[in-house]
Order: sequence, then C-alpha cells, then structure tokens
Amino acid sequence: MFAPVYFDHNATTPVDPAVVEAMLPYFSQQFGNASSRHEYGRAARRAIDEARAQVAAAVGAHASEVVFTSGGSEANNLLLKGAAACLRPGLLAVGAADHPCVLRPAEQLARRGWNLEKLPTDPAGRIDRERYAAVMARKPKIVSLLLANNETGVIEDVEPLAASARAAGAWFHSDAVQAFGKVPLDFRRLNGCGVHALTLSAHKMGGPKGAAALILDKRLELEPLIAGGGHERGLRSGTENVAAIVGFGVACQLAIERRAALASQLDRLRTQLEEGLVAFGGQIFGLAAKRLPNTVYFAFAGVDGETLVGHLDRAGYAVASGAACSSANPEPSHVLRAMGVADELARGAVRVSLGRGNTEEQVAGFLATLRSTVDRLQRLTAMAV
Amino acid sequence: MFAPVYFDHNATTPVDPAVVEAMLPYFSQQFGNASSRHEYGRAARRAIDEARAQVAAAVGAHASEVVFTSGGSEANNLLLKGAAACLRPGLLAVGAADHPCVLRPAEQLARRGWNLEKLPTDPAGRIDRERYAAVMARKPKIVSLLLANNETGVIEDVEPLAASARAAGAWFHSDAVQAFGKVPLDFRRLNGCGVHALTLSAHKMGGPKGAAALILDKRLELEPLIAGGGHERGLRSGTENVAAIVGFGVACQLAIERRAALASQLDRLRTQLEEGLVAFGGQIFGLAAKRLPNTVYFAFAGVDGETLVGHLDRAGYAVASGAACSSANPEPSHVLRAMGVADELARGAVRVSLGRGNTEEQVAGFLATLRSTVDRLQRLTAMAV
Repeated sequence: MFAPVYFDHNATTPVDPAVVEAMLPYFSQQFGNASSRHEYGRAARRAIDEARAQVAAAVGAHASEVVFTSGGSEANNLLLKGAAACLRPGLLAVGAADHPCVLRPAEQLARRGWNLEKLPTDPAGRIDRERYAAVMARKPKIVSLLLANNETGVIEDVEPLAASARAAGAWFHSDAVQAFGKVPLDFRRLNGCGVHALTLSAHKMGGPKGAAALILDKRLELEPLIAGGGHERGLRSGTENVAAIVGFGVACQLAIERRAALASQLDRLRTQLEEGLVAFGGQIFGLAAKRLPNTVYFAFAGVDGETLVGHLDRAGYAVASGAACSSANPEPSHVLRAMGVADELARGAVRVSLGRGNTEEQVAGFLATLRSTVDRLQRLTAMAV
Repeated sequence: MFAPVYFDHNATTPVDPAVVEAMLPYFSQQFGNASSRHEYGRAARRAIDEARAQVAAAVGAHASEVVFTSGGSEANNLLLKGAAACLRPGLLAVGAADHPCVLRPAEQLARRGWNLEKLPTDPAGRIDRERYAAVMARKPKIVSLLLANNETGVIEDVEPLAASARAAGAWFHSDAVQAFGKVPLDFRRLNGCGVHALTLSAHKMGGPKGAAALILDKRLELEPLIAGGGHERGLRSGTENVAAIVGFGVACQLAIERRAALASQLDRLRTQLEEGLVAFGGQIFGLAAKRLPNTVYFAFAGVDGETLVGHLDRAGYAVASGAACSSANPEPSHVLRAMGVADELARGAVRVSLGRGNTEEQVAGFLATLRSTVDRLQRLTAMAV
C-alpha cells in the first residue's frame, strides 16, 4: 500500500491501535443500545460512563459536565444555537479567524435577529485587545473564541478574555478542538476565569471520527439541536455511538499518559522544520504568538499553495493548503485575511501539522523535497514573468 | 462471556462481522479527512462515494439524494427543523405514535409559531384516515409519518397518505429507520407518490452506530442544523465519519443480498413466537395491521412489562418493554395510548424484535421461560389481590 508521510494531523489523526482495540468489542459483541434495560444495554451504559469519566479527567472537568456529540461541528452549533434559543436576541461575538463551524451558525443567528460581531485578530493572529474591550462594553450575550487556531496553531490566552466577558455578563465558549491533546487544558481553572463551555473532538487527538464533547457549565442553559429520546441529559438525543465514545475515552487516557513525551517530540520536530524553512526563504505565519507545538503554517513568495501541496502529495508528503474543512473553497484563507496578510502571500499558504508518528528523518526528507520543489516552481514563475 | 439471547433488534443490531472487516482499514491506515487534498483525503472521499452509491442502491435512490448524518434522530431533526426554517410558520402534522425524535422537534417548532397536529392512529396502529383527510383539508406545510412503528412494527401504507399530502401542497417525510432492511423500500416509487424524504439508519440493520441518512428530494429546501465547512452539499457540516459510512454502505449491500432469505427466516420465527404466545394467553398489539416480519409486541393480563423484562433478562433473554430510546420514562407507551389501549394492559407491554442471528431453538427456549415466568408472576398478582 502506498503510504505517504502524513503531516496533516490538524485535519485528522490516525486512530491509535490501542484505541481501535478498545473499540472492537462494541461492534459485534457488546453491541447494545445504552438505553436498553437488559445486559447488553447495561454493558453499553457502563462503557459510556467510563469514557465520560476519562474525557472529564483529561480536561479537569466533572463527568456530569461532559455532553457527547457526534463531532466538533455539532458541539459548536449546539452551543451557539442552543444558548441563543434560551435568550432574547442580542449581541453575539465570535472570532473573525474562527472555524467555519462557529462562523456559519453565528451567521444563521444573525439572520434571526442577533447582532453579530466578528472580532478581528492582530497581525500575530491573536484577538485584537482594543476591539475586544470595545465589544465587551456593548454587553454581548454570547462570546465564542477559538482556543487554538486550526490553520496557524496560534493559541489564544482566553482566560483574561473570558474574565472580561463574564464582567460584561456574557456566556463564554471556546472551541478547543485543536488545543486538546496538544497543550494542557484545565476546565476547572478556565471555568473559574469565566469559560462556560469547551468543545473537544476525538479524531483530532488519536480517537475515532464520530465522537466529540461539549464540556459544559450547567448554569448555561441550552435548547437541544437534536431533540428526541432525551439522551445526554436531554441536550443531545440519539442512540449513543458507544464504540466511538469508548475510543474517545481511551484516546483521552493515552493523551494524558503521553503528553510530556509528545510535547518534547513535537517541539523538537517543529524546531527542525522551522529552521529548515526559514533557511531557504519560507515565511511562517503567527510567529510572534504562542503556537501549538505541532503546527507550522508558511508560504514562499511567488509559489501557489495549492500547486505546492499537489507537488508534495505526488512526492509522498500529505500536507494542507488552508483548513481541510473548507478547502473546497478556492478563496485565500479567512484566517490569514483576518491577520492582515496580503492575498498574494496568503494564496501560498501551506500547513504542516505534526503528530506522534512523525520522525526527524521524515522532516529532513520533507525539507529536501520542499526545497527542490519550491526552487523549480519559483523558476517557472520567474520564466512566466 | 455471558451472552444472553438477543431479541431486541429494533433497539440496535450487532454489527455484521463483514461490516466490521470493511470498516477496519479506515481507522488507522486510510484514516484521512475526506476534505483533504492529498492521497489520504482522496481515499476517504472515494470510500464515502462508494458507500453513498450503496445506500442509494438499497432504496432505489440516486447517490446525489443521500445526505449522511450521524444518526436517525439527527436526520429527523434536520428534516423537520431544516424544512421549517425555509418556510413561514404554518400547519405541521406528525403521527401521534411517531418516535420521540419526530415528536420532540415538532413540539420545538410549535413553540416557534407552528401549529402542530398529532395525527391519531386507529386501534390497529395505522393513521386514522378520516382525521388525516380532515387535516389535509387544512393545507399543512409539512407532514411526517413513521413508515414502520418501532414498538408495534405496524407498517403504514404511506403512498396514498403522501399523495393526499402532495395534493394539499405539503412536503412529506417518512421515518423509515425500522422498515429499512426488513421490508423493500423504493424511493423512486415513493417519491412518485409524493414522499419527499426518508430517514434511514445503519445501526438498525447490521451497520454501525454513527451513520444514517436522509434520502432527500432536492426540491425540498433545508436549512442545515449543523452549519460549518459545507459538507454534504451544505446540508450537514462536520468531518465525515468515514469508517461508519463505509460500514453503512456494506450493510446496505448485505441487506439486499440477504433480503429474501432473511424475510423467510423472520417470518418463520415470528409465526412460531406468536403461536406460542397466543397459546398461553398473550395479547399481541397491532395484530390487525400489516407488520414488520421481525416485531412482536405483546402483554399478559396482570403482568407488569418492566418486571417481566427484568425476569427474562436474568433468565438470559434480552427483550424490551416499550421503546428503548425512551425507556427511562416510566409512563405507558405513547404508541399504545395512541392506539387506544388501556393503560393497565399497556403497562404490560413487552417487545421481541428478531434478527438474523436468531434461531427456532432460541424462540422455543424463550417461550418455555416466558410461560413459567408469566405463570409465576400471575400467581403472585393473584395472591396480592
């Protein structure tokens, strides 16, 4: 089987073999519906309870604060639309560089009477503090900000932002899908600062697709997006995806066990990669900010990102040009636009997101291939001009 | 491992080993995000395309009419709330004996200005034709009716009902989650009669939890419930659960291949079970209607259903008392109430739902255990009186 080097862990990650192993019994043996009142049902319920405790432990939350959903997009939609449905329309503030699964539901709410403010970022990719303070003075009802950006990897210092939002009387949510598993998260501490909800997703940190969670302060009232049998304390109806939830729990446990080793591995690889990139003219976005240890978002002058990704793909390296989830869209990245990057350079953007399976040899091989590819493409561009 | 006899296939089914086999490569090898523009992403996209064609083929639909969701509850909520969001509030009609994941979103819409009509059933469990005609005369905008009831197994003849709804100018949806895989479904034919959408779910027919579909006539405009990256033609954002979708596709293919053999197997087992039940005083609900070949819903006078299910569970038989999805609710079944069954008898309701793994020996053993258990419980009741 053709197995290119995988450098796209912010799009999705391979499921850890130990996670698959833990999931397997829940397909054909312990396959019960967790609502059923017989042995098969009880076994499924116990497995979900255990996974709920594992997810909670990984972020310093209580198990009763974990609401399982089918994915991060669902969790973000549930939070935004669910909270809005319990309030009178007012001011809603989200980050302009947030993920589409926050921006699009926010726009849906704007069509239903909410006043939507998209908070701009500074050139380093963090929320502009002055504009933020001005928006808080207008008393928003809901504020949602990415904890770590999926494209740039820029980490937002949400604690003071949440504290201001709380002082303004707002519910504060943070999409922590990319941060989770890469940097430590402590919901108790964040909650103490005014963060009322966090979104997590299994498939970004070694778990399966199909399981995610909203970590939720119970004072934040939500109307369910999916109403029905009353699962997940009435907040998310539908037969629980037991195997995926079990996998999510085990992935959380592994993430805690491996956190220190993974952090130093990623740090080493990222340094190697960035030093190599800069050495032959790569420009790295968000360099002035604190970033995730696995993410390097860069461009070379005069080289189109899509073209570069295609060449690298054929050479055996899987990387991204802009966020995978919206890459059907040929527009330059909205994240880079929010940071004030010129469209021409933004069109060159390529993202490498490292993971546990990556090695120094892979990074070295990638740098060599990248260098020759960029040289060739830049020569072609020069000839065309 | 303790493996009770599983007679609860309407709650969920074991995933067929061939389905698990087909899913496995998509966890740790072909684990890509289907939106990614590299080999891992393309492999995931191809797998989804193939599954979409398999699901479409199983119900006589076009692949472009398949919208994947995380489950049947999500699909029903998407249809009802998504269609309602594109219309001015008006009359919405759903079956009083429908599943909670149709009833609850319908009630949410009723709180947002929609006029909700819950259509009563006749004593056999079918929609009352006279009341239906009267509601159609009031020009509903959306009509949603179960194709086969999850508790009674009663099959609704939706074609004439859809035709009346179309004549009234309504969008017509049918939740076919329980029917799918047990009786043939032909969306082209149903669509010709005025059915605009069908809900299907993988885990009720040998596929995994976490994959389902709305089969959708493209003239029916929907606002997405989960907005974001624009997946599924903009109707359902979120990274596709590739493994579960692949499993759904393979389960559909197996269902077609096995349909005739399964139908005759279930028919034989159900006859054996019903003859046995009637022989010692069991009353079967919905007996006057056409029913699914696998479902037997019954009660014994003076025997509480919950108690009976508990005794059977301890004796090694997994059956349900009322719908699994709402069995946290101690109220008598809303389905039996809609059929006019007295609460006292309804509290005795027990559902056996057969599946591919069941045998004549299991049914015979069950009947013997049931008979002695019912005898004992009836004697206890008599003593208490």
